[in-house]
Amino acid sequence: MPTTSAGGTEIRNPQSAIRNLKHRHLLGLADYGADEIRLILHTAREMKGVLERRIKRVPSLRGVTVVNLFFEASTRTRISFELAEKRLSADVVNFSASGSSVSKGETLKDTARNIEAMKTDVVVIRHQSPGAPHALTRWIEGVVVNAGDGAHEHPTQALLDLLTMSELDLPGKPGLAAFDLSGLNVSILGDIAHSRVARSNIYGLRALGAEVTLCGPRTMMPVGIEGLGVRVTDRLDEALEGCDVAMALRIQLERLEGAKANLFPSLREYHERFGIRPEHLERHPDLWIMHPGPVNRGVELASEVVDHERAVILDQVTNGVAVRMAVLYLLSGGSTIE
Amino acid sequence: MPTTSAGGTEIRNPQSAIRNLKHRHLLGLADYGADEIRLILHTAREMKGVLERRIKRVPSLRGVTVVNLFFEASTRTRISFELAEKRLSADVVNFSASGSSVSKGETLKDTARNIEAMKTDVVVIRHQSPGAPHALTRWIEGVVVNAGDGAHEHPTQALLDLLTMSELDLPGKPGLAAFDLSGLNVSILGDIAHSRVARSNIYGLRALGAEVTLCGPRTMMPVGIEGLGVRVTDRLDEALEGCDVAMALRIQLERLEGAKANLFPSLREYHERFGIRPEHLERHPDLWIMHPGPVNRGVELASEVVDHERAVILDQVTNGVAVRMAVLYLLSGGSTIE
Amino acid sequence: MPTTSAGGTEIRNPQSAIRNLKHRHLLGLADYGADEIRLILHTAREMKGVLERRIKRVPSLRGVTVVNLFFEASTRTRISFELAEKRLSADVVNFSASGSSVSKGETLKDTARNIEAMKTDVVVIRHQSPGAPHALTRWIEGVVVNAGDGAHEHPTQALLDLLTMSELDLPGKPGLAAFDLSGLNVSILGDIAHSRVARSNIYGLRALGAEVTLCGPRTMMPVGIEGLGVRVTDRLDEALEGCDVAMALRIQLERLEGAKANLFPSLREYHERFGIRPEHLERHPDLWIMHPGPVNRGVELASEVVDHERAVILDQVTNGVAVRMAVLYLLSGGSTIE
Repeated sequence: MPTTSAGGTEIRNPQSAIRNLKHRHLLGLADYGADEIRLILHTAREMKGVLERRIKRVPSLRGVTVVNLFFEASTRTRISFELAEKRLSADVVNFSASGSSVSKGETLKDTARNIEAMKTDVVVIRHQSPGAPHALTRWIEGVVVNAGDGAHEHPTQALLDLLTMSELDLPGKPGLAAFDLSGLNVSILGDIAHSRVARSNIYGLRALGAEVTLCGPRTMMPVGIEGLGVRVTDRLDEALEGCDVAMALRIQLERLEGAKANLFPSLREYHERFGIRPEHLERHPDLWIMHPGPVNRGVELASEVVDHERAVILDQVTNGVAVRMAVLYLLSGGSTIE
Repeated sequence: MPTTSAGGTEIRNPQSAIRNLKHRHLLGLADYGADEIRLILHTAREMKGVLERRIKRVPSLRGVTVVNLFFEASTRTRISFELAEKRLSADVVNFSASGSSVSKGETLKDTARNIEAMKTDVVVIRHQSPGAPHALTRWIEGVVVNAGDGAHEHPTQALLDLLTMSELDLPGKPGLAAFDLSGLNVSILGDIAHSRVARSNIYGLRALGAEVTLCGPRTMMPVGIEGLGVRVTDRLDEALEGCDVAMALRIQLERLEGAKANLFPSLREYHERFGIRPEHLERHPDLWIMHPGPVNRGVELASEVVDHERAVILDQVTNGVAVRMAVLYLLSGGSTIE
Repeated sequence: MPTTSAGGTEIRNPQSAIRNLKHRHLLGLADYGADEIRLILHTAREMKGVLERRIKRVPSLRGVTVVNLFFEASTRTRISFELAEKRLSADVVNFSASGSSVSKGETLKDTARNIEAMKTDVVVIRHQSPGAPHALTRWIEGVVVNAGDGAHEHPTQALLDLLTMSELDLPGKPGLAAFDLSGLNVSILGDIAHSRVARSNIYGLRALGAEVTLCGPRTMMPVGIEGLGVRVTDRLDEALEGCDVAMALRIQLERLEGAKANLFPSLREYHERFGIRPEHLERHPDLWIMHPGPVNRGVELASEVVDHERAVILDQVTNGVAVRMAVLYLLSGGSTIE
């Protein structure tokens, strides 16, 4: 019986076709295959069991040093990674750099090589520049995990979203629990063009067989995005028709057109055109709501929608820790065993 | 023989009438009974033994996650809690939020629920708004410990003060060591109206039987405070007459009347009217001095008084770690056993 | 066979004349004898073995609390100490204070005594004032490690430099591996007057028998420095003649003469007069390059020199963690055993 061993924890993993990740890093989901994604999700499900115990700690990464190298402030993502690392018993060091004090390019290289010279094993990096995590892999020997790079990818966010979808109560989709999302209709709503969350989700959802609809203002839709096998609309009612899961993206207020001159009318208009309101939940009684957080209540989602029983935003948060534990565990050499 | 077990440490606790806290949280001492306060103090005394060892660590909270959620900067209190948590082997995450970036009300709720969704067990919260810790208990399942909420309460500060008083060499008070403070005269000096330290101490001292005198400018004295069973005066000599312990509160310089216009005359005047000087220690040879720190030397206390052998300010600091270990231990399910 | 035990790790230490440090603190190398320095370096070499393992952690300082008390920002040095502490299994607390919020003198005393009252064992202090670590030893009982005090000393930097030199491939110097640096010629380049790194290195290098040449602008050379047994020049070609190791110091840009008025001409001039360029490496085929980091590429060292195989800057970083582990281990009571 195939199992994954998380340092003394028996992890059963009967549905995974592979036992180890093929990749050495997690830079994005663009080139991760369905088998790898499913292996991570299986392992995350087992890690979630660890989180339910009173003693939420396994010794898998004892003596392994993980550096959280955050060039953009992000308290929630940093804490989620930090908790994942500590619950795997890793030694954790936080390195926060503002974009101003540490400049890009060569200096990132010097910073990274210095940190690695201290014999660190894993670097979790968040950076404002797309491709920064990939550049790191050329400069250092250690494992690199992308915690968000510009508008490029945010793979652990997509993985936690996939895990959350696999747990939804959707009677017509028997394959969900085995991470087969074929027949699942997911709509991603908002500023697609600037969203690393959208990008990673598109790759992950398509890999597992889901149908993806993107919905947002035309100005926030990347040209040629249909090439990724997704449907595009700028009408919310179209996006919600036949939709199983609506994933609202966080609006970066400073990017809203005309926002500086006329903030509130614009936000109200956004909410009217693309925000999910109680009426949508009534009209679509099987629709589930997701959001990567933190929500701007009254903008992407009406406040009542955030607190509705079909919003699984807090499950996403829980699954974030489990997914990050799984990624760190597998990339550090953890594997399924016979 | 009743004992408390702190994860392999045998903790004897012969004088406590109860073995578990009745409360699930520590929001304040207003509704804590004498039995509960004494159980915490007994346990803290045993924890203090742990602090005297070379290996100052017990496994009591292994795998338990504690979040320090500090909305007000407070390096000393945060470090004291952090050391208490680490010495209990908890996994510790620090979350610092300035009052500006995280707004009050609903956002505190969302922040708290997000943090709890990461499967944290205990939240230690400091917040500028009175009642914020109480609000937390309605929003999350975990244990809440108040590390200071506005001018409301700061219960662990009062508990460490009580523990420090129980250790004083006061021959006429044989019950002290058993946490019976009847007959003990304590004077609290300074800005009572804005002091969460004063408020928590009044509750704790009265619960254990001490007599309390409050002394400060009339403008810094809450109306109707006598209803809590305390004596009020604005004359320092009256407050020190027959007094066993004088607890000077830290002056928040920005709150001093006329401070902005004329800072030093006002501080000098404060020191002359309410500051404790060497002459007071000479006149009252049995008087002990306490202060929650950090002291404004030359304001609340003359510098010689801070360094006097009858000032126990550093004992208070040590006892702070012990008391916080005890609180976290007991609220996490630790108890006395037969 | 003499060995040092690092908590379960067998540490062989055949060449050390002593088994314990004579000093209780590490304030500087000025009064450390060759025997003590060699004991630290021997122990650091063994600690380096720990860093090469997958599980880079020994239990030597379990239950021991180390406070990193940094009054000057220094991410790299702080992370290096923090990693050293965690790999020794110490409990670590970081206390960062800006020079503004915590004033000097008496307040440092109060801060230190407060932190010690929380039963901490070791204080690692970085402070802008020369002598601050020494002052600490009068105020607290615990062990004090100087992580840089003004322009005075930075002893762990010098120790990591010595360890790095002992590893160099220099055929004519057979004693290096045993930490006998007699016959080794080291040139230190740059702003000697303001450099704690230079000062600590001079003491350490002279103690182990090396010859030291200082080279920099006359305005950056302390008066009477020859009294420490060093040679002084303001000509780079003289400094590199017969030199085995050139140690370039980091230029503090704000201190460069005329820098504010005319930054780039001045930096270019500095590079032309004192910077090491590829031509120097060609002209001196046995010359090794060191730098305490972070390098201003194109100023102290040409970029090609930084990345050259005879630059051992990243080895210095690795050795920094090993040396700090050794210092903390030995000062906490670790010793060689028969």
